[in-house]
Amino acid sequence: MPLEALAFDVTPVGLHYLLVHYDIPVVDADSWRLSVGGCVRRELSFSFEELRARPPVTRAVTLECAGNGRARLSPRPVSQPWLLEAVGTAEWTGVALLSVLEDAGMKDGAVEVLFHGLDRGVESGTRQRYERSLAVTDAMREEVLLAYAMNGQPLPPQHGFPLRLVVPGWYGMTSVKWLERITVLDTPFEGYQQARSYRVRQTPDEAGEPVTRMLPRSLMVPPGIPDFATRDRRLEPGRCTVRGRAWSGLGTVERVEVSADAGATWHDARLDGPVSPWTWRSWLWEWTPCEPGAFELCCRATDSAGNVQPSEAPWNLGGYINNAVQRVSVVVAET
Amino acid sequence: MPLEALAFDVTPVGLHYLLVHYDIPVVDADSWRLSVGGCVRRELSFSFEELRARPPVTRAVTLECAGNGRARLSPRPVSQPWLLEAVGTAEWTGVALLSVLEDAGMKDGAVEVLFHGLDRGVESGTRQRYERSLAVTDAMREEVLLAYAMNGQPLPPQHGFPLRLVVPGWYGMTSVKWLERITVLDTPFEGYQQARSYRVRQTPDEAGEPVTRMLPRSLMVPPGIPDFATRDRRLEPGRCTVRGRAWSGLGTVERVEVSADAGATWHDARLDGPVSPWTWRSWLWEWTPCEPGAFELCCRATDSAGNVQPSEAPWNLGGYINNAVQRVSVVVAET
Repeated sequence: MPLEALAFDVTPVGLHYLLVHYDIPVVDADSWRLSVGGCVRRELSFSFEELRARPPVTRAVTLECAGNGRARLSPRPVSQPWLLEAVGTAEWTGVALLSVLEDAGMKDGAVEVLFHGLDRGVESGTRQRYERSLAVTDAMREEVLLAYAMNGQPLPPQHGFPLRLVVPGWYGMTSVKWLERITVLDTPFEGYQQARSYRVRQTPDEAGEPVTRMLPRSLMVPPGIPDFATRDRRLEPGRCTVRGRAWSGLGTVERVEVSADAGATWHDARLDGPVSPWTWRSWLWEWTPCEPGAFELCCRATDSAGNVQPSEAPWNLGGYINNAVQRVSVVVAET
Repeated sequence: MPLEALAFDVTPVGLHYLLVHYDIPVVDADSWRLSVGGCVRRELSFSFEELRARPPVTRAVTLECAGNGRARLSPRPVSQPWLLEAVGTAEWTGVALLSVLEDAGMKDGAVEVLFHGLDRGVESGTRQRYERSLAVTDAMREEVLLAYAMNGQPLPPQHGFPLRLVVPGWYGMTSVKWLERITVLDTPFEGYQQARSYRVRQTPDEAGEPVTRMLPRSLMVPPGIPDFATRDRRLEPGRCTVRGRAWSGLGTVERVEVSADAGATWHDARLDGPVSPWTWRSWLWEWTPCEPGAFELCCRATDSAGNVQPSEAPWNLGGYINNAVQRVSVVVAET
């Protein structure tokens, strides 16, 4: 199937992205090249086949959008109204960014590595491509990938075909899609997506703090079945296994607690080992409701750096990093 | 990977569905069976492997949700707020429903075929599974599939693993997912999803008209690049190829027209042949804006039954079948 068709013939999420974000670029892998330049000893350029001929690395990674949870903030920030669905785990295959940077050889004075995507948009009146940088020390970490496959298949168009960056542990804006150029810089990058977007601030005039690694978060699969109108979950009486996932980019998840009384009391969930150091951990908690009626289930994760999910997260202009405790209303039926 | 994990580890659209619709059932294909019963000469039951051992049929089909365009109606109906993204085309592989119905042998007096899904929800206070029926004549059409693969892969959980119905030409609610039972009926089915949901009506008290086949619709890939704040498209001056897709469940698409002046004048687009009788057709229109400034691009399809997309679609309670002309605001730059 020609790529032009592919970019349109994707599942709903593709067209949804098309409407909300910068466009999904339609890239011909045969003519596409990745160039590496800037503050390096050797400028490099790779065809798609040349990249695929390098030693492949496969790594399971959980990626979460920095705007996950945005729609729960009030007033609602202007951008994609994610509830809690902007997170996923996949197996990414590609080449280690480190090996490419080593081949290029960074010169003394290199401070950041800039990643140029092919997706374009207009923000604050300026036409631009999507570009984000990483400090050299973050870019040189061995887990960072230049990925050309997702779950064993070529990247779908909406996930960055033909090549994307995957930076484990960081919010998704870091993992630049539709990559076409890497530039090593001797001064910090001040582009729009670095200096203006993805900053935690209250007003447009503030510089704010940059969004970086994922804060701890746990999510449960809401138990029972949904009531269409109220969105409550209806549950039969008796024992119920509450299952979920938890992750953090600031450390490993060490603890998940669950509450059935809106956070008044907490119980430790059983944690399973992560599939990889960079994926969420599964957890479960056996719950037997004490009586019929309404309950509010909550879960919260704690990571090895001591970060705990807050009951409420502070509002910010961009609606980023809202890792507040998830709350699920459940109605348990009479026996 | 265990299925339990798969149902959670899907791309964002999976969890999104989880939050909005009935749940995504987690099905173990090894213990799952499809049963066929009711008004038949021979009750049948198939394991997943038994179905896959039957002669496979592959068919490319465009599926559109009956609620596509719902978010453009005012006041906004209560349900999934689709803009225009609830449509897609895939290659489905499975067995012809007709061959299974012939093996079972329908008795005299059979009027409908009922499809039972495993997904559960509560609507109007009643706990139920998702069930929809087709008239015998519609169910016996040779294009109707029991599909176990999508684009050459097992069905993803959110698309109905392990088996779903695919009814070409009809809105998506007909193509019951997570299928577990087929019942031939000698009286019309009056279940919730047939008699209450998917009816075009103004008030809850009306019976309304059933939603059936897809009305004609054309969509363009918005040209140029998006302005984040206004959602306008920014376009360089000069020739621009506007591309899109068009489909109808009421006939073949015979014509697509495009307007650059908000529908005052229309121009015929060039139509490509459909990939299959049941998929959208590609189209393109070469446009050279006469001057810089603001334009409103529109497109409309006409099918072989003479149906044309309306400029505006009438409001209805469920927000169904809104096939109004798509409108895209474009700003062409100065030369």
